[in-house]
Amino acid sequence: MRKMVDLNCDMGEGFGHWVLGEAPDEALMALISSANIAAGFHAGDPNSMDRVIKLAHIHGVGLGAHPGYRDLQGFGRRFIDTSPEELVNDIIYQVGAVREFGRRHGISLQHVKPHGALYMEAARNEELSRHMIESLAAISGQLIVYCMGVSKTYEVAQRLGHPVVREFYADRDYGADGQIVFSRKVSRPDPEALAQKCLRACVDGKVTTVEGEDIDVEFESICFHSDTPGAVEIGTAIRRVLVDNGIAIAPSSAVLEAA
Amino acid sequence: MRKMVDLNCDMGEGFGHWVLGEAPDEALMALISSANIAAGFHAGDPNSMDRVIKLAHIHGVGLGAHPGYRDLQGFGRRFIDTSPEELVNDIIYQVGAVREFGRRHGISLQHVKPHGALYMEAARNEELSRHMIESLAAISGQLIVYCMGVSKTYEVAQRLGHPVVREFYADRDYGADGQIVFSRKVSRPDPEALAQKCLRACVDGKVTTVEGEDIDVEFESICFHSDTPGAVEIGTAIRRVLVDNGIAIAPSSAVLEAA
Amino acid sequence: MRKMVDLNCDMGEGFGHWVLGEAPDEALMALISSANIAAGFHAGDPNSMDRVIKLAHIHGVGLGAHPGYRDLQGFGRRFIDTSPEELVNDIIYQVGAVREFGRRHGISLQHVKPHGALYMEAARNEELSRHMIESLAAISGQLIVYCMGVSKTYEVAQRLGHPVVREFYADRDYGADGQIVFSRKVSRPDPEALAQKCLRACVDGKVTTVEGEDIDVEFESICFHSDTPGAVEIGTAIRRVLVDNGIAIAPSSAVLEAA
Amino acid sequence: MRKMVDLNCDMGEGFGHWVLGEAPDEALMALISSANIAAGFHAGDPNSMDRVIKLAHIHGVGLGAHPGYRDLQGFGRRFIDTSPEELVNDIIYQVGAVREFGRRHGISLQHVKPHGALYMEAARNEELSRHMIESLAAISGQLIVYCMGVSKTYEVAQRLGHPVVREFYADRDYGADGQIVFSRKVSRPDPEALAQKCLRACVDGKVTTVEGEDIDVEFESICFHSDTPGAVEIGTAIRRVLVDNGIAIAPSSAVLEAA
Repeated sequence: MRKMVDLNCDMGEGFGHWVLGEAPDEALMALISSANIAAGFHAGDPNSMDRVIKLAHIHGVGLGAHPGYRDLQGFGRRFIDTSPEELVNDIIYQVGAVREFGRRHGISLQHVKPHGALYMEAARNEELSRHMIESLAAISGQLIVYCMGVSKTYEVAQRLGHPVVREFYADRDYGADGQIVFSRKVSRPDPEALAQKCLRACVDGKVTTVEGEDIDVEFESICFHSDTPGAVEIGTAIRRVLVDNGIAIAPSSAVLEAA
Repeated sequence: MRKMVDLNCDMGEGFGHWVLGEAPDEALMALISSANIAAGFHAGDPNSMDRVIKLAHIHGVGLGAHPGYRDLQGFGRRFIDTSPEELVNDIIYQVGAVREFGRRHGISLQHVKPHGALYMEAARNEELSRHMIESLAAISGQLIVYCMGVSKTYEVAQRLGHPVVREFYADRDYGADGQIVFSRKVSRPDPEALAQKCLRACVDGKVTTVEGEDIDVEFESICFHSDTPGAVEIGTAIRRVLVDNGIAIAPSSAVLEAA
Repeated sequence: MRKMVDLNCDMGEGFGHWVLGEAPDEALMALISSANIAAGFHAGDPNSMDRVIKLAHIHGVGLGAHPGYRDLQGFGRRFIDTSPEELVNDIIYQVGAVREFGRRHGISLQHVKPHGALYMEAARNEELSRHMIESLAAISGQLIVYCMGVSKTYEVAQRLGHPVVREFYADRDYGADGQIVFSRKVSRPDPEALAQKCLRACVDGKVTTVEGEDIDVEFESICFHSDTPGAVEIGTAIRRVLVDNGIAIAPSSAVLEAA
Repeated sequence: MRKMVDLNCDMGEGFGHWVLGEAPDEALMALISSANIAAGFHAGDPNSMDRVIKLAHIHGVGLGAHPGYRDLQGFGRRFIDTSPEELVNDIIYQVGAVREFGRRHGISLQHVKPHGALYMEAARNEELSRHMIESLAAISGQLIVYCMGVSKTYEVAQRLGHPVVREFYADRDYGADGQIVFSRKVSRPDPEALAQKCLRACVDGKVTTVEGEDIDVEFESICFHSDTPGAVEIGTAIRRVLVDNGIAIAPSSAVLEAA
């Protein structure tokens, strides 16, 4: 049973004039322990990054870069057939931009979490995962990589001894293979049900798949999405239920250290 | 008379498939002491940045960020009416991206030089210059800012005690007001003539304006452009003539330290 | 007194995953007589254009192109210093894209309305207005241009005999010079008050400025914005009040023909 | 044996400040009978489109739209996993932009040729080819589609009775399956050898594959690339050798009509 878990959320996923989701950044930031900051390729711009990273500092939230494919129109959810070398250059670029705003606001970079189709591609593509982790490790051995538990990314990080955090998705469904089922459409889920799903995953290490069977899940962080309808209510419910059951919520750097 | 001067060049100004100018990056990098790296907004992409910054490290060249307006089509040469706050966010974003590739290749960031219309706007706009320099100073007090000698940028940096380098433009013409005359069209200049112009500026502190009169110039760095036809020949001539006349060429950090 | 007026709205101003405003496109399209379709430079993408132009056809709404500066981050609200030749090329590009989706859905192009800072720049810049109107006239003499009543655009169109429509802004304030006062922040206005403002403008040709004085206004079209909070209620109120007072609402091509 | 063939080239493949290839547009346009105009997604901008389409009109060259994936950095050479509906919207957008500049310069749109990875994907993807051709046919039954002879695009066009042109690639190698072997690197080929390859393809309907065997080729148009080193010499050689051997070079609309 987990005694401590990270609670992460993608943040700053608007662009220019546009915002994503109904949840105010301030409200979300007060609920989570780690934030993945959109870095300009699939969403986010220098103004949103500055604003949200300042908020992360204020709330003592672990700072993460959330690099994606260069695809604003597709919100980084479309696979682009690119070499691992080029993708890692894209990642380093975005990581650097997030880190610099962190420097401005006095908060160091805790983690990197690829976004959307890049996250899924890294999960499948061992060469990409290896090149990404080796490149990040060469820059900083402390930069935690976020991934799915069932993924090449996790395998490679473990093998290379690089700090890694597996995610449990509060507001996504699981398949029998332990992978999340991505969907473009998101309905308004019941916050209490999601919180209980998270509690059970923490306590029993189990989740029920879309096929109706229980599978084992291992993770150090729980993720929910800022654009899921009712995101603030979801985050509030998860936090309340976990804390009420003696599970502390802390940035992933603290979770890994405590392990 | 100058005994030591920096020689800088804008580098990595292609985008994706496109290159700018005929000069090979390797040849240019071997000639200069500081490089201004295009950071993706007006030119440059993560692949060019990775490649050129690695080259800068190999050649011991001072690493600079070259942030521009977000305007690939206009190559950052069009003024965009934006608040200083937003522009400085754009600058921090681009600075961070360059710095991160520097971390990857083991080379620290020496300077920031705004590009094109942003450089000219900062020269005119005291509020922009002040906000830029204060913001950069808050991140790192050592980050040298490049500017024209006759500019608000220089005045503000001096007043704030922030390290600053004035540029002399080898391949641009000067007006009577000491400001360079920007032009979209560039013809193939005589490398020897440009080198002599640089030598005279170093030795006598004088340059002849387009109106035919001599004006005083003060500077710590000489700039030429990688897309000026014959850039390698120009850089070679400048380097040869200066060194033959006892003027050392060194990164601006060394030039400032020696002053 | 006006017996017939056009009611126009900017439509399709999201981009990719992002939407702008709370108002459903279907609800707005049912209320207006002309739609200005964002064409990809400041907002809008091929998918939104296809969807919204199909809606315009279904509702018998006059089809307009809404070209803007190439500035997604700034939503086309930042002036970019560009030559009239380049801006007109940008306009023709965007006009063509809108027209083609119109061909797909069986609806011909009625008008062109520049967006945001481009609209304001054309209002000030006689050379830009002249080059734009002459270029559009060379392509199609029937393409109505939308503009402010007090503008170089209107003057030039009148002089050249090109069809032109002046707009009255329901949800913007007027200055003493008859120009609208642009603002980035928009609060939720009272729909009934805006409707009465429109009615008075139609019946008496008067509007009260921010300074509290009455000025004369002349126009053929009323504009309100899809991202003004309560846009559907605003459009509903305007339509009801005008029709109840015997003022017909029709596409600008019909309004000009009836004049 | 072919008595008449089209000679096409991709044109206007720069972006903003950047140009592609060494060949002057004017020189190329004088050699070819059809031009595929980059339309802004993978290359090209409104200024290049205006300039090159005007040139096409001056030289009596058949006007074609050359739509690509929205991927400036990758020059449209990277597959992006997108639905046929979204891709066809992208194509219609770009077709409309090209057609509008054609209207400006008094030249009607002759054909559509998808670019790079989109061309290859359409060749493989029957659903995409069908949706593209049905959508273009609904807009204009005369709009010729360019494709490879061995492709789903050709099969679908034939089945639907839509005008279609198969291409023979002068400066690309063929595999045993009759498909061209795409390559990012292009060396400087011998113009005379390419011209003889084209002549043999026209006269005997044969080409030698990279494996060294002869295969049959059928086509109505010969393509060479403006960024292949020596493009003007290549075009000149092809034109001379074909004409010397009694094969007329004409726009594809004329070639199809004569068939």
